[in-house]
Parts: sequence; structure tokens; C-alpha cells
Amino acid sequence: MTKKIRVGIVGYGQLGKGVERELQNQQDFQLIAIFTRREPKQITRQFSETRLERFEDISKYQKGIDVMILCGNSKKDLWEQTVHVHKWFPTVDSFDVHEDIPTYFEKVKKSALRARTLSTISIGWDPGLFSLHRMLGEALFPEGEIFSFWGKGYSQGHSAAVRRIPGVRDAVQYTLPSKGAIEQIRRGEKITVAQQDFHKRVCYVALEAGVDKHEIERAIKTMPHYFAPYETIVHFVSQTTLQKNHQSLSHGGHVFARSEDGTFLELTLAANSNPTFTATVLIAYARATFRMYQLGEKGARTIFDIPPKLLAIDTNEMLRKRLL
Amino acid sequence: MTKKIRVGIVGYGQLGKGVERELQNQQDFQLIAIFTRREPKQITRQFSETRLERFEDISKYQKGIDVMILCGNSKKDLWEQTVHVHKWFPTVDSFDVHEDIPTYFEKVKKSALRARTLSTISIGWDPGLFSLHRMLGEALFPEGEIFSFWGKGYSQGHSAAVRRIPGVRDAVQYTLPSKGAIEQIRRGEKITVAQQDFHKRVCYVALEAGVDKHEIERAIKTMPHYFAPYETIVHFVSQTTLQKNHQSLSHGGHVFARSEDGTFLELTLAANSNPTFTATVLIAYARATFRMYQLGEKGARTIFDIPPKLLAIDTNEMLRKRLL
Repeated sequence: MTKKIRVGIVGYGQLGKGVERELQNQQDFQLIAIFTRREPKQITRQFSETRLERFEDISKYQKGIDVMILCGNSKKDLWEQTVHVHKWFPTVDSFDVHEDIPTYFEKVKKSALRARTLSTISIGWDPGLFSLHRMLGEALFPEGEIFSFWGKGYSQGHSAAVRRIPGVRDAVQYTLPSKGAIEQIRRGEKITVAQQDFHKRVCYVALEAGVDKHEIERAIKTMPHYFAPYETIVHFVSQTTLQKNHQSLSHGGHVFARSEDGTFLELTLAANSNPTFTATVLIAYARATFRMYQLGEKGARTIFDIPPKLLAIDTNEMLRKRLL
Repeated sequence: MTKKIRVGIVGYGQLGKGVERELQNQQDFQLIAIFTRREPKQITRQFSETRLERFEDISKYQKGIDVMILCGNSKKDLWEQTVHVHKWFPTVDSFDVHEDIPTYFEKVKKSALRARTLSTISIGWDPGLFSLHRMLGEALFPEGEIFSFWGKGYSQGHSAAVRRIPGVRDAVQYTLPSKGAIEQIRRGEKITVAQQDFHKRVCYVALEAGVDKHEIERAIKTMPHYFAPYETIVHFVSQTTLQKNHQSLSHGGHVFARSEDGTFLELTLAANSNPTFTATVLIAYARATFRMYQLGEKGARTIFDIPPKLLAIDTNEMLRKRLL
């Protein structure tokens, strides 16, 4: 038995908890500690045996942790934490604001090279495995087409946007892919569904007392960027119904790469829990990041850079024998 | 514009012709020559401008070709050709006898290291992209399950086995995956379909005059390994019908990776032409092999070893911006 990879988690929200739980399925990892900016004593732990530490104390673990999984948000946390944490540890994160990836990558790369460490960014399913499938599809079919669909699933950003409307007590927004468009792609047909109709947005909204439904519905449907361009359906429900029927974290989607002659490769994800699945991908890439760091690699990496074999627990020889 | 990759093809059967045709969609390649063991003058060319050369003359192109795509068969050709051709060129091949891959890999690796070159083996869809998806799934879900399905598609080996039965004039065999098993996997259910019923084998057979149908049907259905363990359906048709309705080269399949909680990743391939799709994969990995060779890599590689970015035409910066 080779030595276990000693891993730490930064951030103890939904994603951090997912990583903690999923690490239990991974025999080659040993979870050493979880770091949080909150007061550790006030936090309900998923597993009581996991050591919770203050984020300020992270450098004390320099010799005790091999790789750090960063579970902060992409709006603010990761911008600050990655360049701090990788002074002592190689890192992997799930930075997911697509349009900011190039800037984030350059910042992390510069800082990682200065710190002589390695940081893998934007790991998860999208960005992540879906990006990988888009890249592969484009390499195979340079004259072909790539299509990405998301859902059915809960959208955090869009749900929050609805909740910000005055008079809305609580809201959940699901993104649904167009079955019509998907069928046209699979059948090798010309796609007649317009790009903005590839997804439908369905909102379940609980209102404050005395608020006008029509006003709120109009406010949602005309919200620029978020809802205005899309087919949007609004259902008003009670707070009780919302809490009872709309707590699922399931998500998924499809990425298609289609050649000119109609040949296609489709990647489908159906995840029971969005944060749990993101956690499993982060763990596999933490394994790869640790190995690359051990081989002396420095700087920033994305899913495009990483040889697949580094994700596997098994030896290359066994992978060839069993899975090739 | 960077310099084009100068590529050669060894073997001018269905796969070699597929590579020749698909290279037309790839702007960064220049096809220099195709090498054949047959008399070049007697061969009908797909595109008259492609230079056809004798296999014996391949070393003359040492300075003129950057990477060689090997399109011989896995039973005999590749065992001999790879270790010969890579004396002068890095190579990529689609060696596809799963159980012989470890032996073939070791032979090619030893010879490549001696010749100080690089050979990528077993590229295509299975072995190939399907293997990659199995490996990825296992890395994500170490406690999960992996399922591979093939078809609907024409099976060369099984068709040939039927044709070898005395009294059979011609035959085509299709492999069909079990829809029931696939649906159980997608629904997150326990799989009640037995492993040997994951695939059904359907034969279309034209007989010589005066041959007993029941005899032939029995001979097919009881053939060890090929048909005996599987549900096999035999249809007798005329030679005309066989030639008219059963010439499709389409193939495909599904690879599932399912976690204990029912989350799954599914890769689906629906290829209009099996050899054409294999050709597109070979070309993308020829690009990667050439680049790895340029970086000084030597030895044998499989799809597990190759960083995905090396498959793409675009720069890493553009990939991150556009596709991540």
C-alpha cells in the first residue's frame, strides 16, 4: 500500500461538506482538516471526527497536508483564497464564472509560479467535464457543431435573482433543456429551435402577504439577461410547498459534438446532487494535481492540461489491462 | 499560420481511406503519401491527387513526414508494421484486440525506446474514447459501476464467423444493446438483466442453393463464444436483399459510469460509419502524438496518457476562453 494523499478542505459550505462525505469512498486519501473562516465551535459537523480549524491557521499544516481542495465561492472567496493558500499547498478549485476564467487563470498562474506551487482551476462538471467534452468534440469534428444543454436542475444564480425582487419571500428556479432541440441533434436533423429556446426557465415562487402576482410575474419575465431572452414559466406556491417539494439539488445536462454527416458523441450527466458530483470531480483532480506537483510541475492548470491516467487510483499497467 | 503537420497513412483499406477523406476537414495537416503493400498502380484511389507509394519505400520519406497513421489490421499487420515504421516516424494506430493490448504495448514500447521514437496505440472508440470514459468513471466513482454497450452496429468478426459455416453464401451480424438494461441504469435501478443478455445478436444470412435453414440456424446459435451465450436471432434473406439493405457501416454504443446513489455519466456514440469515426479519432491523436514527440517524449502511449489539450488545433489560451 502506497502512502495516502493527505488532503485538506477550505470552506465548509455545501461543496466542502460534499467533499468531506465523498472522500470516504476514496481509499487513497486521508482527510486531515477542514478550514473555515467561521468560528469552528459554532459549526455543525457532518462527521464529528473531522478536525475543523480556523482559516488563519492554515499555514501550520504545511508539512501535514499534501493538497488542498478549495470550496469557496467564485464571486469573491476563490479570488482571495487560492493565491493565499497555494503559498503552502498545491490547490484545486471549482471556479465557475465562465467569462472570468481567463483573468482568474492568469492571476493564479502568476502567483503559483512565484510561490513555486501548482493550482488546478475550474474543476467540476461545467466548467469541467462538459468543457472537456466540448474540446474533444471540436478536435474530432473541426467542421462540426457543439451543443451544451443544462438541466433539469436548480439554478442558484437565477433563484437568487428572483429572491431579490421585493415582495418575493422565497423562490426556486429550474433550468430545463429543450427536448425538441435534443431530438433534432440526435436524429441528425437541421436544428430549427432557436438558440434562446434551447432552455426553458421554470420558477416556483412564494410571495409575501398582499403582493400582486401579476406584478411579480412581469418583473421576473422582463428581467434582462436572466429571464427576458428565455421562455419563462412562473408558478406561485406556498412557502410550505416550496420547502417540501423543491429542495432537490439534482442537476445535469448534455454536451453534443456532431459532425457534418450527423455522427454524434453525447455526454450526459444526471447527478442526484450538484454539489456532491462537483465534489467527486474535485477529488479526482486533487489526486492528479498532487501527482503533477510531485513530478515538479508549477503554475496553473485546467482540465485540458491533465493526462487522464493521473485521475485513476490504479497503475497504468492495470488500467491498460482492465479498461483499455 | 504555423507549419502544417505532414502526415502519412500506412494501409489503404476502409480505415486508410477514411483517414484520407477525414484529413480534408483538418486544416493543420498535409497528407504527403499513402503506403501500401499492394501494387499502387492497381489501386482505385479515393482522391487522385494523393501519392500512393510502396510500403518498402517508406524510409525514403523520413525527412518528409512528421507522423504516420497506421491503418493495418490488429491480427497481423500492426504487430509487424508498427515496430518497423517507427524506426523513422512517430506512429499512431488503432490496435483493437482488447486482450492482446498489454503484450502489444510492451512490444511497441520496447521497440520505440530502442528507436528513440513515440508510438500511440489502440486509438479509436473502443478501445479509445470508451476506455477513457470507463477510466474516468472509475476514478470518480470508485464504489460505483461501469457498463459498456455496443451497437446497434455491424460486427465484422461475428459476420465472418457466420460466413465460415459451410452452406452460407453471405452473412451480416448486428450487435444490439439491451434497451431494458440501459433504462434500468438510467433510472438508477438495480440491474436485473443478466450480463450475457446485455447484447442481442441478429444475423441476416443468404444461403447457397439447397441448404437446410434449420441446420444453419442451429450451427449459428450453438457456436461457442460467438453466439452460444447470447440471445441470437437469425433471419434468412436473399443475396440481393443482403446487398441492398445491409451495407451500413454505422455503429456506436454507450458507456455508463454510475455511482452508488444513482448519479450517472453516460457517453453515447452514434457513428454513421465505424471506420470513418475511428479515422477522425486517429487524426486527433496523430496531432497529439506529433506534439509529444516534438517535446521529446519516447516510448509507447495510450489514450490514458495524453493531455487533452494536445488534441486541439487551438491554443490553450483560446481553449480556456472559448470552451472551458
